[in-house]
Amino acid sequence: MLSDVAVDQREKAYALLKADADKILQLIKVQIDNLTMPQCPLYEEVLDTQMFGLSREINFATRLNLITEEEGKELLDNLEKQLNVLHEASQRS
Amino acid sequence: MLSDVAVDQREKAYALLKADADKILQLIKVQIDNLTMPQCPLYEEVLDTQMFGLSREINFATRLNLITEEEGKELLDNLEKQLNVLHEASQRS
Repeated sequence: MLSDVAVDQREKAYALLKADADKILQLIKVQIDNLTMPQCPLYEEVLDTQMFGLSREINFATRLNLITEEEGKELLDNLEKQLNVLHEASQRS
Repeated sequence: MLSDVAVDQREKAYALLKADADKILQLIKVQIDNLTMPQCPLYEEVLDTQMFGLSREINFATRLNLITEEEGKELLDNLEKQLNVLHEASQRS
């Protein structure tokens, strides 16, 4: 049985991770809108570093049983999908 | 008042972060022992990335009130001090 505190903590952990994923998406949107080319190595590097940071947060939350492995994988997969959509849209325009 | 669950969670969070900091130190030790030059850009990049990952974990734990800002700062400061000692020792040998 989980206490209310534990449930609150889990919900907060998930919300923070989701917000961090959204922040990465936002950062990439700004880069694309400002016409920094997605082919630019710096763009790739920023994205890789940000994704690594988020994956470390998710891994940490998983080890603390704040989120399940499944939830963590879903957060990263969703972000990657959204980034791909953005990337493809920028290539077409 | 913190429940027992919350205290356990805080202790576990701190222990995980400490273990992750030790892992970075270990990684750098291995690099130095294997004579990869600390001047090598790859070495710097690996270290920067690892430090960034740990700082994201610490920031996340702080936002969840699992550790205090003070504890987080201390973890990073201690790691940096130990890395400096290692680095200086490798320069002298």
